[in-house]
This record gives sequence, structure tokens and C-alpha cells, in this order.
Amino acid sequence: MIGKEIHNFALDLWKINRSITGEGVRETLSLIKEHLPNLKVHSVKSGTKVFDWELPQEWKVNKAYIITPDGKKICDYSENNLHLIGYSTPFNGYVSFEELKNHLHTLPKQPKAIPYITSYYKPRWGFSISTEEYLKLGDGMYEVIIDTELFDGYLNYGELIIPGNSKKEVFLSSYICHPSMANNELSGPTVLTFLSKWLENLSFRNYTYRIVFIPETIGSISYLSSNYREMKKNVFSGFNITCVGDNRAYSFLPSRKGNTISDFVAKHVLRWIDPNYKIYTWLDRGSDERQYCAPGVDLPIASIMRTKYGEYPEYHTSLDDLKKVVTPFGLNGGYWALRRAIEVIEKNKKFKVNILCEPQMGKRGLYPTLSTKDINEKVNLMMDFISLCDGEEDLLSIAEILNVPIWNLYELSEKLIKENIISEF
Amino acid sequence: MIGKEIHNFALDLWKINRSITGEGVRETLSLIKEHLPNLKVHSVKSGTKVFDWELPQEWKVNKAYIITPDGKKICDYSENNLHLIGYSTPFNGYVSFEELKNHLHTLPKQPKAIPYITSYYKPRWGFSISTEEYLKLGDGMYEVIIDTELFDGYLNYGELIIPGNSKKEVFLSSYICHPSMANNELSGPTVLTFLSKWLENLSFRNYTYRIVFIPETIGSISYLSSNYREMKKNVFSGFNITCVGDNRAYSFLPSRKGNTISDFVAKHVLRWIDPNYKIYTWLDRGSDERQYCAPGVDLPIASIMRTKYGEYPEYHTSLDDLKKVVTPFGLNGGYWALRRAIEVIEKNKKFKVNILCEPQMGKRGLYPTLSTKDINEKVNLMMDFISLCDGEEDLLSIAEILNVPIWNLYELSEKLIKENIISEF
Amino acid sequence: MIGKEIHNFALDLWKINRSITGEGVRETLSLIKEHLPNLKVHSVKSGTKVFDWELPQEWKVNKAYIITPDGKKICDYSENNLHLIGYSTPFNGYVSFEELKNHLHTLPKQPKAIPYITSYYKPRWGFSISTEEYLKLGDGMYEVIIDTELFDGYLNYGELIIPGNSKKEVFLSSYICHPSMANNELSGPTVLTFLSKWLENLSFRNYTYRIVFIPETIGSISYLSSNYREMKKNVFSGFNITCVGDNRAYSFLPSRKGNTISDFVAKHVLRWIDPNYKIYTWLDRGSDERQYCAPGVDLPIASIMRTKYGEYPEYHTSLDDLKKVVTPFGLNGGYWALRRAIEVIEKNKKFKVNILCEPQMGKRGLYPTLSTKDINEKVNLMMDFISLCDGEEDLLSIAEILNVPIWNLYELSEKLIKENIISEF
Repeated sequence: MIGKEIHNFALDLWKINRSITGEGVRETLSLIKEHLPNLKVHSVKSGTKVFDWELPQEWKVNKAYIITPDGKKICDYSENNLHLIGYSTPFNGYVSFEELKNHLHTLPKQPKAIPYITSYYKPRWGFSISTEEYLKLGDGMYEVIIDTELFDGYLNYGELIIPGNSKKEVFLSSYICHPSMANNELSGPTVLTFLSKWLENLSFRNYTYRIVFIPETIGSISYLSSNYREMKKNVFSGFNITCVGDNRAYSFLPSRKGNTISDFVAKHVLRWIDPNYKIYTWLDRGSDERQYCAPGVDLPIASIMRTKYGEYPEYHTSLDDLKKVVTPFGLNGGYWALRRAIEVIEKNKKFKVNILCEPQMGKRGLYPTLSTKDINEKVNLMMDFISLCDGEEDLLSIAEILNVPIWNLYELSEKLIKENIISEF
Repeated sequence: MIGKEIHNFALDLWKINRSITGEGVRETLSLIKEHLPNLKVHSVKSGTKVFDWELPQEWKVNKAYIITPDGKKICDYSENNLHLIGYSTPFNGYVSFEELKNHLHTLPKQPKAIPYITSYYKPRWGFSISTEEYLKLGDGMYEVIIDTELFDGYLNYGELIIPGNSKKEVFLSSYICHPSMANNELSGPTVLTFLSKWLENLSFRNYTYRIVFIPETIGSISYLSSNYREMKKNVFSGFNITCVGDNRAYSFLPSRKGNTISDFVAKHVLRWIDPNYKIYTWLDRGSDERQYCAPGVDLPIASIMRTKYGEYPEYHTSLDDLKKVVTPFGLNGGYWALRRAIEVIEKNKKFKVNILCEPQMGKRGLYPTLSTKDINEKVNLMMDFISLCDGEEDLLSIAEILNVPIWNLYELSEKLIKENIISEF
Repeated sequence: MIGKEIHNFALDLWKINRSITGEGVRETLSLIKEHLPNLKVHSVKSGTKVFDWELPQEWKVNKAYIITPDGKKICDYSENNLHLIGYSTPFNGYVSFEELKNHLHTLPKQPKAIPYITSYYKPRWGFSISTEEYLKLGDGMYEVIIDTELFDGYLNYGELIIPGNSKKEVFLSSYICHPSMANNELSGPTVLTFLSKWLENLSFRNYTYRIVFIPETIGSISYLSSNYREMKKNVFSGFNITCVGDNRAYSFLPSRKGNTISDFVAKHVLRWIDPNYKIYTWLDRGSDERQYCAPGVDLPIASIMRTKYGEYPEYHTSLDDLKKVVTPFGLNGGYWALRRAIEVIEKNKKFKVNILCEPQMGKRGLYPTLSTKDINEKVNLMMDFISLCDGEEDLLSIAEILNVPIWNLYELSEKLIKENIISEF
């Protein structure tokens, strides 16, 4: 089960201190590159203008913790990188509990959880702490040590182009900017790494694959600012890959208009994997489709997910882990749903029968010679399929009309091509 | 509450003896003109051909009543103008009860009601009487006095053009031809009078408003015969205003094909005012939309109503009054539903974001600087709205996608225009 | 009731030994020709290539039966022509019960039924027998006599062209290749015979009628191979006529895309004959629409049926008879459903009002002169109809909007044309 391998890779990436910039992103990319040697790591300078945005400074954490009045070290970043608010400015000094409270973030409804909080674009410092720990704190002076650095550096991302027979592109994107969280971080880049390996090993690809591992939001905006003109020309399908690691649900989030081939493929695949898969709308969006499908960008990007960000209690907390939430089974399901979808895109052709009226299947040994009132399901499916090969409907539409998973038609269509009954159109 | 003012105006108009022609129409128009000094009163000669019709003679009632064998005066037109059949020819003489019966009209199922009956195009005489009164009558000779005159005169109507920034027109029509009835008569012209006052007082109007107060059917046919060519060029939206005075329901009747901007606007407004509003079809029509939307005329006219004509028990009887049926509250609701609709037409633009990818709202102070897992509904609505400003969907469609009343977006769109994030497209 | 005449004709055809070729087909055609003297009987030589197929040899049965070890004659073709597998090769000899079993076909779930079995394209011999008879058989040697001949001859079919005002054609097809079965054979050609007689006797036809009586599958393929180019040019509507004789249900099977005028007509007619009529899909097909609607052929052919082939227990067995299954009432219903459908095709015009705004119906004596609150359904229907005569909607669409059977509008539209209120458009 490939899910086990993916899970192991996620464990390797778990402890790295990722943010939207910095060493953690580069470490993550270099571990991905061990699987995908052709991955190209790009660097863009702090301060670079990307559409309406400016790339932030690079952020580095040396150490960060608090010493309680009792001399206990709490909120230690080296123990859990969620303790420190993302992009915290440096601070060193003693503060009263009253003052400290303004810098402590808790989730009272989930008393064991450390919430994940960031402040990329406004300088401030702060810590996240579980409510259970918070309630143990008392009055007195606390020593706060935040040894962080903010300096002009780089924003990094990984890009992999896998060429295919056509210049037309399928675009796959995942993000690498959250610290130690599993479904809403590691499931995405690890599944995408293994999908990329599978794609690289295919002996034939109809399409070119453009694959990126980027920091969410600022990374996708940055990537689009350099590439969107070319992408608008070539990309005809693609998926944003996030939250593909737990085993509780399958779900779908459409492109802005919901009418691209990516949308139709995703819904077909998910329906046949899990008839109870959840359908979200564009208004439920929250990841990089916000950029890829923005007005004027308008790339055909949909999302195939397991349980969606924001829809499970562990989301954006220390509880989103690789033990209870993300499992080998969960990752396996996410991987196969996406692989099925990519396979559909590769195989979704139009076919036309070469023969007017029904072909004589008996002389080809493909039809029972005795006509009785019994029904042969397999023969029926073949005759139905042939009757729909009119050069107008693509394989996906035919599968929908026949109410079967499209993958049930792959072998059949190849057999009929070999028999010269149908041709690609 | 403007409904109170409208109700007072309706009380002023109550006693006037209206028909499709005559002094009552002119009196009514002159009272409307007190509110709308720019109203132009037109006169068209009896006998004028208007499409398939010919304008009828003018009808004047001097007096009309019956003297019972006991010497009692009944069916006195001066007490209730519904007693006399509209367009009754003159008659003076004694008739037996047997003969009189053929000329008396009752509503046995509503024993207290005097029915409203007319015979515009076939000469006859007759009276309406409540069943309760009718049952008191006995055998004997009755003296019938109908002192009416039919003579070549004029058909009158009022017209008000309120110019706007564009020559494109919104057409508003109501009728002034029924005698003392409230929902199915006075609610229409009184609400339209106050809508016209509001429109005249606006500092800016995108569109020109063509407003008419006409006798139903023959008046709208007459008006169209003179104006339909120009109207077909300029009118892109409009409403027929009738039955907007009771407080029991809201309802909608579409244009012939039901696919004009007036239809979409009306349905949106009514849905957000009253989710249980009643939707009728073209087959339920019965007012001047029969002319405005006739094949070949095809103006984009829909109806926003309170309780529709024919759908309430008091309809076309003396029970349709300004006490129990039409109330200040009812009129207020009718006024605001139509005003909302006209506001939508004025404000329904297309917008396009000026920025590729999501705008950086934080630097404009429009976005929380701290990213937590909590959801800010107002910020969400703003980002959703921006994500839909693609220059293709108009504000009405965006409101439908966002599932909010369009008026919730007026201020937001203005703010985003000021911030130079979106522009009119 | 015409159903009685049709049933009598079916009784005449019952005993004829039909197959896809041979004397039975010719006998059947000659009995049809007695009703339709203009019927042209065509002959195509065995071995002729028709698209992907080759016409089979002609099959003739002289006699066929089995003598049991007790000397009893069973499975006698002369008693029931379903006993012999269609296209059985000759055989003469003694076989053990063990061997014979391989050549005997039963339907254990319907113990009294002799199943209908054929083997047109693979040489074999065999008998059908009811399970009840089969269970009486014991060990021993059986004498098998199958005196059949397979030889180069002809495939025959009947064709009738009934000319109309336009070269545009309505195509009607039924089949004549099954031996003694009633709903799934004789109902089709007998109903089509009487429909053809009605069509020939019409004083005026808008369209030309192309009517064929053919062997199923090989016959329609054969006919199309000679005629499809001309048919693609001229045929704009048509029906495959099968299973129109029982009295248990009405049903509909669409053309391949389900969007032809034949589909809309059939659904309208059936809805008003039987609101519970059953709707099948293209995937449920099983008769000559498989050829007529095949990709590249694409004729606009739908099926109006009583109980569909394969959907009733007696289907393709000796129980599908002219007593319990097919009745005069059943045939009558099938005939009228198809006749209604053809009438719709003849009468489905577009109309346009000649008058702007509502016509003054009163002056034409078509409208009540007294206006009361009562509703006159007939006048309402007339005014609704006029309001929809815009030259865009055809009569069928108007009937759908009005929610009435289209035949309720025939007289009305003629009256309005006479009054010069509407015109054909």
C-alpha cells in the first residue's frame, strides 16, 4: 500500500519548522528533491512585488520560550513549533502576567490543543498555548525570550515540469508553509511527491505536467506573477492538493465557475469512490484556488480532498497529527483519488464507430450465437458503449450516461479499437 | 411610515366615481397632479381606433336608483357607486319584479357584498345589490331611474416622464378606472404617486422613468398605440402596479417569457422580503401586462403585488375597502417592495477586480492581521464578493450566488470602488 | 372499435411460420398487401453485403419433431412453430437422452412456456419445450427428425410510400420475423397496417410517409444500406412500432439523444393518454431503433409502446398470445396512441397573432359582454392561446405551457385562423 510509504515520508518532514519563508521551506524542498531529482528550487528576493503583494522578509527562529515565575520553561518552540506565533518579532524581557496574557493565544473549546496562529504582515510577538497549560499559570513576572530574526532573504518554491506528448498542461499544486501539522499540510506535498514519481515513471503521457510545491497564498501569487500568461495558454486542467490524508471523508471543491473538465473529472471519480463524498461550493474555498481561479487568472483548478480544511476539529491545531488524524489508509485514499482523476484526464478521448448500424459482433466472437431472453450484462455494456461512440461525447460523458466508473471502460475501448470497430476521433 | 401618507391619499380618492372614461378619471388625475405637478394629462377622442379597438363614448352618471313598491329607495348610486353596472344605458320606467330580476346582479356566496360589474361594449342597464338586500325584495312594480349619458368625449390618462442619465427607460404603469375599490384600484395609483415623488427627488437617476396612470385595458392599448415603437426602443424594465395595498401576502406575476431583468429583480426582492411570496405564471395574468407583454409588443414588464386580483374574497366587490383590506401597513409593504426593485435596477452594474489574484486587504486595513481559525463573516463576504467581480456577473447574479439580499452589497461595492479594488465594467 | 379489426387481422397472421427469411415472411407480406395494395415487396439476395453484415441463407422447414422411446411424437413444429430453434440445421437420427438434453431448451421458471430461441448466424439444431413436458421425458433413445433446408434465396420486406404535400418524410417501421407471438410481433405489423390505411385515406397529408415491414435487425440494416442517404435528407420524424397490443401499460423509448420532435411528440401524447406511462432510456433499447438511431445513421425515431419487450413475463415465449396478452382493447390503445402522435406531427405549426395587443373578441362575439368576477375556462384558454402565438413556440410547446393535450387546440386554432386573428407562421 503506497499510503504507508507516503506516511513514512510525512514522518520525515514532521519536525521541520516551516513558515512561508526560511530554512524550513528549503529543508522540506530538499527532502522532496531526494524523491524527485528533477525538482527545480526557485528563490525570489524579499521585497519583490508580485501583483498586489510584496514578498515579506525571511523569518528565522533561533529560540523562543517563556520562564514562569517558578522558573519553569513553557511554550518552548524547540518542543513544538506551534507555540510561537508565525513571524513573531524578537523580544527579550520580563512582563507581568497581566501583560503576557495579551500575547498568549488559547482555544478554550479544545483545552488540549495548541492553536496555530500567524501574523505575517503586522509585526507583533506572541505564543500559542493549550488551555490546560494556560490555566496553571499564576500572577508574577514572566521572562520572555524570543530570539527571532527578520531580514531580507528569499521566498523559495519547488517546480517540476514533466513533459508529455502535448504542450497542453495539467497543473498540480500543494503547499509547504505550515509547521508541524498533518492533514492541513504534510498530506498535500507528500501525496503530490508520490503522484509526481508515478507520473515520471509512466512510459507515455499525453500531457505535460506542471507541478509546484509552494508557500500558500504568497507563494501561489508569486508563482502566478511569473507564469500565469504561459499557464493561461497551456493549462487545461489541474488540482490544488490539500487535506488528502485523513480517513473520514472525501470531498470536492469546485473551480470558480465549476464548469471545467477538472470539476467534471473530480466529481465523477469521487462519486464512484464514495457516493457520500461531500460537495462544497466556491464560497467554501480557502486554499490556493483563491489565486488560481481568481477573476482574470481563471485557471481550471479544482480540489479533491479527504476532510476539508476548517471542517475537522483538529484543523490548525497541534492535534492535526500523523497518528490519529492522518493515517496510511487516509493518505492512500487521497493518493488514489487524485491518481484516478489524472488517469481520467489522460484517457478521456472521443471515439467514433467505424461502422454504420450495429457491428456484427458474432462473426468477431464477441456476441452469444444463441439468442435467448436472458440478458448478458457484459455484452449489453459493450453494445451500449458502441452505440454512444458518436464522436461527440467524450469517454467521461459516456461513462456518466452508462452510469459506470470510467475506468470500467478503459479495457473495453482498447479492445474495440483493436477490433477496428471504433476509432479515436 | 410612508404607508400612512399613501393611505390618506387613497381616502381622498375613495369616493370619486371612476370608470374607463369621464369626470371621475379627470378628477382622479387632478388629485394625483397635486402631488406630481409635472404630470401631463392626455385626452383622446371617443371613436379613435387603437389597434383592434375603438375608444368608447364617454359615460356620465347623473343619478341612478330604484324605488321599491313600498316607496323605498334602493341601489342608490350616490350612496355606493358599485350599485350601477358600469356603462349602464339610461332607463326610466316601471318594471315588474320578474323583469327587474334580469337586471339585478348578486353574489349569493358573499351575501353582504355588492359585486362590481361592467358592460363597456354592449349597451345594457343593470344594478348590483347585496344578496341580503335582494332577499328583502318582493313582488310589485319597481320604478327604475337611470339618468346616464353616453356621448362623444374623451379618454384620459396621465403621463409623467422623469429624465435620467440615460435614455434607457423604466416603465411604471397603474390604472385609474375602477370606482370605490381599494386593493384592486386605489393601492396602485397611490403607491405609484409616492414612488414617482421619490424618483423625482433623487439627486441622480441612471435611467429615465416613463410613468402612466391609465384606464385598464383600453387605456394601455391606447397608450401603446401611440408610444409602443419608442417604448420598444427604450424600455428595458418596468412594472405593472396593481393590488399593492393589503397586508396578507406578497406575490409575483412574470412577463410573458419570464426571462427579463424585471422578472429576475422582482423575484430577488420578493424572496428577501418574504420567502413565502407567491409565484404566479403568465397564465394567471389579468391586468395591463396582457397588453405590455402581448406578442409583438413584448415589453419587459412584470408585476410585484401584495394579494393578487382574483385571489382574495373581497376582490371586485364593495368589501374591497380601505378599512379591513387595504391598510397603511399593506401599502407600506407594497411601496417598499417596488422601491427596492427600482433601486436594484438603478444599482445593478457589473464590476471587475482591478488586481490579479486576491488583493492584499491587510495593507488597506480591511483584513485582520492575525490569522486564526475563527471566521469573520463580514471579511468573508467581502472576499467572496471580490472573487466574483469578473466583469461577467452583474450585482444581482452575485447576490444570488452569495445568497444575500442585493442591498447588502451596495455599501460594500462602493467601498471597494473607492479603494480602487474593483471598477464598474 | 378499430382494435377489433386489428385483432382479427392478427388472428389471420398467427399461424404463419415466420423467420427472418423464407415463405412465412412472403405470406405475411401478401396478407398485408390485401389491405395495402400499394405495398411493394422487395427481395434481396442471400449473401448480399449490408454494412457490416451479410444476408443469411433462406431457411425452410418441411417438418420437425422428436419421437420418444415410447413412440410419442413431441416438439412437433407443425403444432407450434416455437418448438424448433430458428435456423436449425437438418438432422435425422437417434440420440440418447443425455445427448438430446444438450439440444433441448426450457424455461424452468415458466414451466408451461415454450421459449422462443434462434441461432441465425451459427449452425446448430435444437428444440424448445415446456418444462412440464420436459420433466416427463426419461432415458432411452430418441428419434430426431429435422427436415429443414438452408439455401441461397432472398430476404424480403414490404415498403409503402404515401406521398404528401411536402417531400419531408415521416418514417414508420415494424417487423415481421417472429413466429407465433402476439405482443412482440403481430401487434406491430397489424397496427401499422391499419395506420397506413388511415393515412392513405386522408384527403390531405402535409408530409410523405415511408412505411416498412421488415425482418428485425438484418432487415432494418438491409433497408438502411440502400436508403439511409435519402432518409437522412428527408426523414424528420418517425416511430418504430413494436409491442403495441396488450392492455397493461403505455411506454416510451427515446431516440439516442432523446431530443427529436418524435421524442417530444411521443411524450406529450402518452402523458395525456396515461399519466403513468413508463419512460425508458436509450440503454433499454432492443428493437430497430438500434439501427435507425445508430451513430452516423441518426434518424429521429422513437418508440411508443404498450408493455415493452422484455418487460412482461410472456415475452419471447409461447404464452405471448392473442388471447390473454394481446386483446382488441390493447391494440386499440396502441393504434390510437400512434395515430394521435402522427396527427400531432401533421398539425404542429407555429402561429402568430395578426394584431398588436389583445384582440377585441367581444365585437366578434367571442367574449362575454358582461364583465363579472366569474371565470370562463373556455374563454380563458382562448385568450391564453392567443397570448402565446408569437411565431416562436410551436403548437406542441404551447400545449405544454397551457398544460392541455394538443388536440384540445386543433379546433380553436382553426377558428382563430378563420377569424383572421392568428396566422400560420
